[in-house]
Amino acid sequence: MISEQPKTGNGAPLENGAAYSRHSAVNAAPLPPPLSGEPWLLTPGPLTTSAAVKRAMLRDWGSWDDDFRTLTAQMRQKLVAMIEPGPAGGDLPGEHAFDCVPMQGSGTFAVEAMLGSFLGANSKSLVLVNGAYGRRIVQTLAYLGQKTVVIDKGDYLPPRGAEVAEALIADPRITHVIVVHCETSSGILNPLREISEVVRKAGRKLLVDSMSAFGALPFKSAEIEFEAMVASANKCFEGVPGFGFVIARKSALAATKGNARSLSLDVHAQWAHLEKTGQWRFTPPTHAVAAFMCALKEHTAEGGAIGRCARYTENRDTLVAGMRDLGFETLLKDRWQSPIIVTFFNPADPQFHFERFYEELKSRGFIIYPGKLTTVDSFRIGCIGRLDKAVMGELVDAVRQALTAMGVKRASPPQKALFERERSRELLDPAPIQSPNPSL
Amino acid sequence: MISEQPKTGNGAPLENGAAYSRHSAVNAAPLPPPLSGEPWLLTPGPLTTSAAVKRAMLRDWGSWDDDFRTLTAQMRQKLVAMIEPGPAGGDLPGEHAFDCVPMQGSGTFAVEAMLGSFLGANSKSLVLVNGAYGRRIVQTLAYLGQKTVVIDKGDYLPPRGAEVAEALIADPRITHVIVVHCETSSGILNPLREISEVVRKAGRKLLVDSMSAFGALPFKSAEIEFEAMVASANKCFEGVPGFGFVIARKSALAATKGNARSLSLDVHAQWAHLEKTGQWRFTPPTHAVAAFMCALKEHTAEGGAIGRCARYTENRDTLVAGMRDLGFETLLKDRWQSPIIVTFFNPADPQFHFERFYEELKSRGFIIYPGKLTTVDSFRIGCIGRLDKAVMGELVDAVRQALTAMGVKRASPPQKALFERERSRELLDPAPIQSPNPSL
Repeated sequence: MISEQPKTGNGAPLENGAAYSRHSAVNAAPLPPPLSGEPWLLTPGPLTTSAAVKRAMLRDWGSWDDDFRTLTAQMRQKLVAMIEPGPAGGDLPGEHAFDCVPMQGSGTFAVEAMLGSFLGANSKSLVLVNGAYGRRIVQTLAYLGQKTVVIDKGDYLPPRGAEVAEALIADPRITHVIVVHCETSSGILNPLREISEVVRKAGRKLLVDSMSAFGALPFKSAEIEFEAMVASANKCFEGVPGFGFVIARKSALAATKGNARSLSLDVHAQWAHLEKTGQWRFTPPTHAVAAFMCALKEHTAEGGAIGRCARYTENRDTLVAGMRDLGFETLLKDRWQSPIIVTFFNPADPQFHFERFYEELKSRGFIIYPGKLTTVDSFRIGCIGRLDKAVMGELVDAVRQALTAMGVKRASPPQKALFERERSRELLDPAPIQSPNPSL
Repeated sequence: MISEQPKTGNGAPLENGAAYSRHSAVNAAPLPPPLSGEPWLLTPGPLTTSAAVKRAMLRDWGSWDDDFRTLTAQMRQKLVAMIEPGPAGGDLPGEHAFDCVPMQGSGTFAVEAMLGSFLGANSKSLVLVNGAYGRRIVQTLAYLGQKTVVIDKGDYLPPRGAEVAEALIADPRITHVIVVHCETSSGILNPLREISEVVRKAGRKLLVDSMSAFGALPFKSAEIEFEAMVASANKCFEGVPGFGFVIARKSALAATKGNARSLSLDVHAQWAHLEKTGQWRFTPPTHAVAAFMCALKEHTAEGGAIGRCARYTENRDTLVAGMRDLGFETLLKDRWQSPIIVTFFNPADPQFHFERFYEELKSRGFIIYPGKLTTVDSFRIGCIGRLDKAVMGELVDAVRQALTAMGVKRASPPQKALFERERSRELLDPAPIQSPNPSL
């Protein structure tokens, strides 16, 4: 559906998951509807979860009890196995080099925990920014008193390997590079492999915020050299919000001892306590963990990240094609467009008001998300959660009805938005990909 | 049932809730059983919640949506009204001097958020320690680089007003006093009013960790002068774990701007964002919040903190009387014993092993908690959660069966434990309460 999608005749996996869609046969049976009366959440999390995931919360767990410790151990094991498959390629316990440390709170808490624990007094970070979540990392580092330099690409252009390499050569004191895998403020999928390669060659360490990507987009320790990464229970794993987790090399985890300036967000202390007792240090969100274990089973049943990415890609393609038929335009070039969330420009038509549009869609059972761009008006529609292309088709119908109800005749954006987009693309992203490998 | 309970012929409320038990008529109808097959959690949280509270999690909420903003606003309003009733004595919006700021994560995250936000670069804290939660506050302040002095009363003696007054006179640089309301590591109820009075007279500020007390024990701004307090969704309010909250004077909240050294745990930033947008800054634990709103309704239906305390007091009295009949002894003198959780000494009988005892009780449908004392072996049984004296009676039966199954003939503790307890009491808590007011 997306016309600019690169052709991948050699079968190499694309980071934005296009190659995955050929595996859609592993998709599970048609999705059950959510509970009656509940709107579909077309948002980057909290998102629509399955009825089974929610029903898993109908039990109270003692956090000290063996039953809950077993849940925690299984969860950590399964998450590590996704990054670093065991000897049999599955999630059997093995001598993994990586470990998983869950952290209470929202995803941002887990990101701050990673930053505060993996950066020390002598660290200096290069942060690659192209949206709100990159800017939030810079803000977090300011709170933590960390030395920071920034490459800021604006709202929607990807940081590229060459410019990262240049920055690392220019400043040998940079110890860490920090990147957002999928920047959900625009929906852009940043070229993680390209960047990790450059960072590895320069002998620096990579920290990754893969909040809205991990679980659907490829992330294997054999392909991405990284020090630590962080993700959340309620993005591509389709659990409920309440915690995130850090996955890191055990040797790197061991080296973080004493770095944290927060008791609660000390990843090393949480890890050491889990290893010693099997328990979280402080009260875990027991119901959210139980829901997550159910969500992990559904993830496996769907074919893991490959199956999930296939469904999300179908969702995205159905959405983008339908919206373009209505005259909407996407912010991003298709080749940078993740299957996670899509940013559309607001129509130029004076009858279009986002608040009214939101309410019209909500009354039809769909909740969308406002835009987060700094220069042009936009809105976002998520492709993740327990929903499929049939739901996306219904959404496009609802959008059509909403435009009619509002008296919007054309959904095309103002020329200013398109002009700005094109100008930036010409200035900053002119060349085709230099790498002989089409995987970015 | 508890023989040392002070007589309160004058009707003055006791901080440990004894006077509340006369109000037990406000108790709601008999409690529904938990969902089938689920053990009772006799723990200080996570605890047994009602089926309705858990069912409230069977819906996904968009965190940006108006419906969820309304939930958040109602929650903040109701919590403030418990501390500072509105003009009509209820929870109607009024010109409250206090405000409530929820914080993602476990209760410890909320405590750290309060400490990191309300203490500045020039603060010096006096921490009143008599158990694990007081020690955790000291540890948190060390992470935060805060200047700290400590009065440590050991495992189970209360900090008293006179010694706090003396410490404040001795060190005029102390700006804040920090106290744990109910120290759940022993179950002791600390004399909050007595301490707040002393702190007020000395012109210092009081920060309170009321994690396991607020919602059942008295806490009114008219009676306790405090700068900020913190509590949790899943203690006496009987919600599920996932967040805590800070309640503080608005003027004090406003003065915390710029203090926090953590983005995630910045109470001022969370407050400012809530005031501006109605939203939490970062993804809220939506399902836990929805469950909490249901729990708050049940709290009101039970007669608020008064009704809840009456039930917990009955639970405690049934438990303590039954356990004493079996030969067990409590750690605490009855007058310091909260209705939240009770610490019992392990029996001296060589056939008693805690792990076996735990499993015997678990197989009978009850989960208890290990002890947290440093000098003697003990275990703890919680009185809070959606359970009543009938459940406590069944628990005592199960304990009797467990002892028989283990071949334990006498449940009485070793003389060493009793000796230590008596010696400490004589040394450090010899005098009757000096205050003419029996409310401690």
